[in-house]
Amino acid sequence: MTDKQQNKLWGGRFSESTDQFVQEFTASVNFDQRMYRQDIYGSQAHATMLAEVGVLTDDERDAIINGLAEIQKEIEAGEFQWSVALEDVHMNIEARLTDKIGITGKKLHTGRSRNDQVATDIRLWLRDEMLIMEEQYLHLMTGMLDLAEREAATIMPGFTHLQTAQPVTFGHHLLAWFEMLKRDRERLLDAKKRVNRMPLGAAALAGTTYPINRQRTCELLGFDGVCENSLDAVSDRDFAIEFCALAALSMTHLSRISEELVLWTSAQFNFINLPDRFCTGSSIMPQKKNPDVPELVRGKTGRVNGHLISLLTLMKSQPLAYNKDNQEDKEPLYDAVDTLKGSLRAFGDMIPALEPNREVMREAARRGFATATDLADYLVRKGIAFRDSHEIVGKAVAYGVEKKKDLSDMSLSELKQFSDQIEDDVFDVLTLEGSVSARNHIGGTAPDQVRAAVARAREALDNTGNA
Amino acid sequence: MTDKQQNKLWGGRFSESTDQFVQEFTASVNFDQRMYRQDIYGSQAHATMLAEVGVLTDDERDAIINGLAEIQKEIEAGEFQWSVALEDVHMNIEARLTDKIGITGKKLHTGRSRNDQVATDIRLWLRDEMLIMEEQYLHLMTGMLDLAEREAATIMPGFTHLQTAQPVTFGHHLLAWFEMLKRDRERLLDAKKRVNRMPLGAAALAGTTYPINRQRTCELLGFDGVCENSLDAVSDRDFAIEFCALAALSMTHLSRISEELVLWTSAQFNFINLPDRFCTGSSIMPQKKNPDVPELVRGKTGRVNGHLISLLTLMKSQPLAYNKDNQEDKEPLYDAVDTLKGSLRAFGDMIPALEPNREVMREAARRGFATATDLADYLVRKGIAFRDSHEIVGKAVAYGVEKKKDLSDMSLSELKQFSDQIEDDVFDVLTLEGSVSARNHIGGTAPDQVRAAVARAREALDNTGNA
Amino acid sequence: MTDKQQNKLWGGRFSESTDQFVQEFTASVNFDQRMYRQDIYGSQAHATMLAEVGVLTDDERDAIINGLAEIQKEIEAGEFQWSVALEDVHMNIEARLTDKIGITGKKLHTGRSRNDQVATDIRLWLRDEMLIMEEQYLHLMTGMLDLAEREAATIMPGFTHLQTAQPVTFGHHLLAWFEMLKRDRERLLDAKKRVNRMPLGAAALAGTTYPINRQRTCELLGFDGVCENSLDAVSDRDFAIEFCALAALSMTHLSRISEELVLWTSAQFNFINLPDRFCTGSSIMPQKKNPDVPELVRGKTGRVNGHLISLLTLMKSQPLAYNKDNQEDKEPLYDAVDTLKGSLRAFGDMIPALEPNREVMREAARRGFATATDLADYLVRKGIAFRDSHEIVGKAVAYGVEKKKDLSDMSLSELKQFSDQIEDDVFDVLTLEGSVSARNHIGGTAPDQVRAAVARAREALDNTGNA
Amino acid sequence: MTDKQQNKLWGGRFSESTDQFVQEFTASVNFDQRMYRQDIYGSQAHATMLAEVGVLTDDERDAIINGLAEIQKEIEAGEFQWSVALEDVHMNIEARLTDKIGITGKKLHTGRSRNDQVATDIRLWLRDEMLIMEEQYLHLMTGMLDLAEREAATIMPGFTHLQTAQPVTFGHHLLAWFEMLKRDRERLLDAKKRVNRMPLGAAALAGTTYPINRQRTCELLGFDGVCENSLDAVSDRDFAIEFCALAALSMTHLSRISEELVLWTSAQFNFINLPDRFCTGSSIMPQKKNPDVPELVRGKTGRVNGHLISLLTLMKSQPLAYNKDNQEDKEPLYDAVDTLKGSLRAFGDMIPALEPNREVMREAARRGFATATDLADYLVRKGIAFRDSHEIVGKAVAYGVEKKKDLSDMSLSELKQFSDQIEDDVFDVLTLEGSVSARNHIGGTAPDQVRAAVARAREALDNTGNA
Repeated sequence: MTDKQQNKLWGGRFSESTDQFVQEFTASVNFDQRMYRQDIYGSQAHATMLAEVGVLTDDERDAIINGLAEIQKEIEAGEFQWSVALEDVHMNIEARLTDKIGITGKKLHTGRSRNDQVATDIRLWLRDEMLIMEEQYLHLMTGMLDLAEREAATIMPGFTHLQTAQPVTFGHHLLAWFEMLKRDRERLLDAKKRVNRMPLGAAALAGTTYPINRQRTCELLGFDGVCENSLDAVSDRDFAIEFCALAALSMTHLSRISEELVLWTSAQFNFINLPDRFCTGSSIMPQKKNPDVPELVRGKTGRVNGHLISLLTLMKSQPLAYNKDNQEDKEPLYDAVDTLKGSLRAFGDMIPALEPNREVMREAARRGFATATDLADYLVRKGIAFRDSHEIVGKAVAYGVEKKKDLSDMSLSELKQFSDQIEDDVFDVLTLEGSVSARNHIGGTAPDQVRAAVARAREALDNTGNA
Repeated sequence: MTDKQQNKLWGGRFSESTDQFVQEFTASVNFDQRMYRQDIYGSQAHATMLAEVGVLTDDERDAIINGLAEIQKEIEAGEFQWSVALEDVHMNIEARLTDKIGITGKKLHTGRSRNDQVATDIRLWLRDEMLIMEEQYLHLMTGMLDLAEREAATIMPGFTHLQTAQPVTFGHHLLAWFEMLKRDRERLLDAKKRVNRMPLGAAALAGTTYPINRQRTCELLGFDGVCENSLDAVSDRDFAIEFCALAALSMTHLSRISEELVLWTSAQFNFINLPDRFCTGSSIMPQKKNPDVPELVRGKTGRVNGHLISLLTLMKSQPLAYNKDNQEDKEPLYDAVDTLKGSLRAFGDMIPALEPNREVMREAARRGFATATDLADYLVRKGIAFRDSHEIVGKAVAYGVEKKKDLSDMSLSELKQFSDQIEDDVFDVLTLEGSVSARNHIGGTAPDQVRAAVARAREALDNTGNA
Repeated sequence: MTDKQQNKLWGGRFSESTDQFVQEFTASVNFDQRMYRQDIYGSQAHATMLAEVGVLTDDERDAIINGLAEIQKEIEAGEFQWSVALEDVHMNIEARLTDKIGITGKKLHTGRSRNDQVATDIRLWLRDEMLIMEEQYLHLMTGMLDLAEREAATIMPGFTHLQTAQPVTFGHHLLAWFEMLKRDRERLLDAKKRVNRMPLGAAALAGTTYPINRQRTCELLGFDGVCENSLDAVSDRDFAIEFCALAALSMTHLSRISEELVLWTSAQFNFINLPDRFCTGSSIMPQKKNPDVPELVRGKTGRVNGHLISLLTLMKSQPLAYNKDNQEDKEPLYDAVDTLKGSLRAFGDMIPALEPNREVMREAARRGFATATDLADYLVRKGIAFRDSHEIVGKAVAYGVEKKKDLSDMSLSELKQFSDQIEDDVFDVLTLEGSVSARNHIGGTAPDQVRAAVARAREALDNTGNA
Repeated sequence: MTDKQQNKLWGGRFSESTDQFVQEFTASVNFDQRMYRQDIYGSQAHATMLAEVGVLTDDERDAIINGLAEIQKEIEAGEFQWSVALEDVHMNIEARLTDKIGITGKKLHTGRSRNDQVATDIRLWLRDEMLIMEEQYLHLMTGMLDLAEREAATIMPGFTHLQTAQPVTFGHHLLAWFEMLKRDRERLLDAKKRVNRMPLGAAALAGTTYPINRQRTCELLGFDGVCENSLDAVSDRDFAIEFCALAALSMTHLSRISEELVLWTSAQFNFINLPDRFCTGSSIMPQKKNPDVPELVRGKTGRVNGHLISLLTLMKSQPLAYNKDNQEDKEPLYDAVDTLKGSLRAFGDMIPALEPNREVMREAARRGFATATDLADYLVRKGIAFRDSHEIVGKAVAYGVEKKKDLSDMSLSELKQFSDQIEDDVFDVLTLEGSVSARNHIGGTAPDQVRAAVARAREALDNTGNA
């Protein structure tokens, strides 16, 4: 048996040491060391509880807690020697603890297993990250509301099928983005309930014979409750999948916003200006100013979709309880978290800095027969059935396309060709302001509705933000 | 213009009729007719509201509501002629309504668009299906609890890495399955909040100029609230993605249970018997009895993962508001619903009918050094540090492997070779009953804990079931 | 035992009939009947071979072959009664054969199993469909070449980051699309080699004890070779996955083309016109003309990505040999085939009908400093290092942005502010024609290169098309 | 403008420096530095060509080539200072070159852009990795053939539905694995054709105005040909997607093999022994020996499926030509390569070291009515139609299940209960050796067929291996 094998926590039964490549292939320390803080925090709470139930003496507990605190400092100072031979963050820290405080360090593992330990660490880690993301959503959403309020009456074309459909306000469009994020944040809060449950105490798979007090450890670690079945506790990775699912959906929303930003900064749309600090140039084309941030966020959507599939594939058909496969849960989750956090941060800075080209937006809305629906509605109010008025306006538009004239540019007599019911008051409904103001119900694009929606949203955020 | 084109609701502006293949390629009626009931229900509520706000007369409203009721009967009697030229369920029903009640039928579409109409229909449809699935979860979970209670003391091997790890009870194992489903149901209930919001009133994308009362329609249709932004209302498909995500995770759980059933019905495990009615035979091998239902459910996991990816890919980078792409939301969602419902139903029938081979399970637990951890814990209680006792037991196991003897089959003197601390009382902890009973804390495998967990779970189900 | 059970091909060992819901849940006949033609074709070849090796008499063979031919007619006339109780296409057809020709019908199954039979059917089916798609690719690619040739000198802006980058020709852009499809077709041909191998003869999993001649059946069915291992033959679904992978990539290409068509038909770009027959209108906005076909194809990308994931998930971790899970291979494959075929057909009709708005394209290229790189290259030819000339032109562009002047609109003295090296000949390189013609190497955008590329591509297509 | 901005290759047009976080968020140097060798190699070939066509002098060329060679040494010695402000591997190396050789360094970028440069680098990198993987496939496949030959006559149960179906040989089973990998390697070779095409010369998107000789650079870099359209050349990422697709399928195969290894090392199967060096132990259960390597490879399947989806999602709907999104192509591709390489290496070592427990395998085959099909075939040879003989044997099996007797354990009189046709010679076909030997056709499990298949496979490998 090699020295390395002797260091292993499980070498007793083995007659041959691990193959060197296999050791590296199966080790997780290179990525799970990221959870060192949660590992130490969890161990300290475990030691506290073990002392309370009499498994450790108070002196042993103190030695462990202080030893771990010192190790945390070593890690944070960059002085800790991570060893691949020691496989993972847990065994690295425990081995160092035993170096420092002797045989007492070996008692820390009493009543637990790496199976429940790693499940606890990753949940603690994800919980911490979710708190950060909650704040990031709030910051970004607040920025959207501020901008929406400022642009509540800025007119732009509303699109369906990327064809000009009806005039809307830019503030209204921004609130559509806001709604997407509002749901994302709701999902984050819902998922957190299921993340914040404690596996510790499940031990390897069946619980432990020591007189542990799971409720006490749960309280010390701030979990909402314990995982109620030990087999499930060590093998459940729902929390990672559920997080990746909500992150994939949230990135999908950011990809939609990004797409619009890329379109709007094109020469053809030119609806907005992105400050230079969010753009980069070209090594070959001196005139280029590229909307890098939205493009990159749009591209990053793919990686979160991918991680979601990784984890679903990972768990498919796994029999209970813990299998080594589960070690593959961390990298996709880490990267999903990093990607969403980075994207939220970039958007949190960028969105409030958008500079709308109001005149261009307005002019775009004026073209493209955007008020055709208003004309149809006008005819309905004159007593024509909607489907018939639709037909009438369709013919007027066909005429306009041929003559290259918008509806509001036609004379009354031209309009009258299509229906006798059209009279002089038609021009009121064909203006952009008239069109948007008339959509004056909850959810409609009228500037007053936009301002009211901003006010409601601010109040709701304040309430959930403080909750 | 062909006759068909004249029937189209939007033909006015067009100089050329739709290509025949394009018409079939772009029509949705073949699959969206599935929502005819929700379409009619939504239209009836819309007509009621329109009459209340004075857009329709009471007579018009009655003609519409009764006409739609007749159409529903025609559809349910199989007498309705669906037309691909009329594109979708909405236009088919509306055209028929106009056939029946004349020009009044054309007024139904006042103040709405197909964009908000289809978004409303699909949410109503999904809500109805979710109610059914809630019941299916309850049924399956209740069946698991009953079986878990019956098998609370049935001993079987607990596995990690598919290696015998420690003895557990079959009831405990069943409760691990229960926990998975409990989370699935929680997610379903969380998602339902976001499904049950009403897009109607968003019209094409910007709201409508008619004096609609969205709150009233919302109430009539039993929605929890209205979608607060019209652009978002017509383009949001989060509800479908969120459902597919939870369905994929739930199918993943069923795949894990299925994997275990397939393993356990193999000749090598032989832990359970599946009644013949859930199995099929082989056309060539007369002796075969194949666990078809679990295999098929395991296989069906893939399709829900696939639908989730379909929908995420679909929405990626779509600019606001409605785009034709969105028509592709239905088939994946339908099939995800059908797959989960079918699988829950099959499991709901099958799980309570599992017949454990208790003697085989017990014998399997007896082999494989399942009580090695108990021996290690025993040594710790004698004052040896856990990591050292682990090493001692590892050596005893290596000896047992060589001699083909389980720990409980070794003599005291054999055991004493590995540690002087081992005494006659060791045999108490090496029994299977001793091992499982000793894991006597919340979440542990002790039979008493299993029974207590069943009782708690029943109470919780009763509470949420009635809620 | 019910009557239904008695009809089952495997009922002998069972004491209880299949649960009614289970029967429907596990039956495949509703979707696998689609392969009836391949099933019959394969059975006829099998019978021919069995007669040649003496397992059937010539009379038996003839009865079987003729009986099957009659069944094919019944199916195609819509007179065949498909039965869910008979599970699948194979047992439905065999049961009907026995009805018709008596006990001889039962001999058809000699030396094979449903496991190798279904694997053979699906490969034959996919092979047939691939032939159709090969033709569709050719048709679409030929259409692209024709259009590219016609538009070889039509100038439009080339984009990177959706920002105007450099002028290109529309013909050149079309050839970029062509290259994507060229690779798709290559992959189709590569995959076909692996599709067109014959599982028949693998029987249930291990081969058969009958003196079959696999080489002969292989020849009769036009396979390129036999699957060389029976366990692999019945469990391999690579061909379906490989097809879905290439289809997903091809749909991704079509989604990219679609995205450009949607952009280009927007009012803001207005680069092309789509004939009315590929568009639909709006039920509420009379002016709308929506690019439905590209939008729908873009949306359909998701479903093929999804099917690919379905099948990869399906096969993950399946032990050998055939498992019931594999029944789930068909629906994703069918739908992937249908989706790609439909999309190729729609594009095959639509692409040649694109109507470029040449003046709009040209004007868009003229704006946006598209010739900035040409200016930088000009300066390099005057002896300035590229990175320095890039800096000079960057400053000229910043000036132009401020003054709202394109480079070609600046006076020589304005240009000279940025570098003394700029002289009167600069205006040659700042023209659009000068810019595109100067990129005159293989793969470059010069009209001559585009024409040469079209010629090479036609020749290559002719060669592989005939192969 | 900050100092950092001044270093940027594109700062001329910008009035504001890049936001610090945006700089980090958009930089790729942390991951694309991995391609430094390919970047230098490509630049050296580019410089050689530029000198040949007269754009560089021979002295300039030499300075560049030598300067790059020195930089390569600096990187490999760990002395190179990578800078995030310089964004990517290309600009880092070029800036260092200019430091070293002055203004000449700036000329290297003449006639190319980062868009074609990065596309060239990544293809060169992938090509190099594919060569390694080709070797790894050969090594693993050769190991399988050797083992298959050795175990050509070792009898084990063949499974369908994880139920004992028919006896097969272990060698035959190993050849099923071999067939999977054979197809994987075919796909790798097919894909390599499309990877090994050269984008260089496409410049930013449209080609370049310099008189470059793409054919010459192509030859210098060992590409099979040039990408024939510049817009496509800079935006095509098919090669990465195609590689991930084949890698996902190959990992799926390894997951299937892994699943079997995990099953077979369970106490319940106990078919094989994995040497200790491929296993690890448990920190809590001293008796455990876990099949870590197969479990981990099975789990890693998910990440490659995920990367495939990442890349498909990434490219979906991207308009031409290069967009910043594309920067997201590298990490998924790298990780897919690393995962497949690591898994192939681990399997290449492990598979030849499998130790079959031949007696256990044989005994498992003897149970479970594995020769039932042989009995049915025997009855057919006595003149009974297959479907009837199937029914007869089904009843014999039902009797055996009840009496706990295998078919070969029944007396002749017991067997005769089910059919008069059964005679004394039946016992020959009920032996395991008789059963396997009788499946004596190409692809069948007879030991002679296994040996012949090994010989054919070796010859084929030799041929393609040398090709």
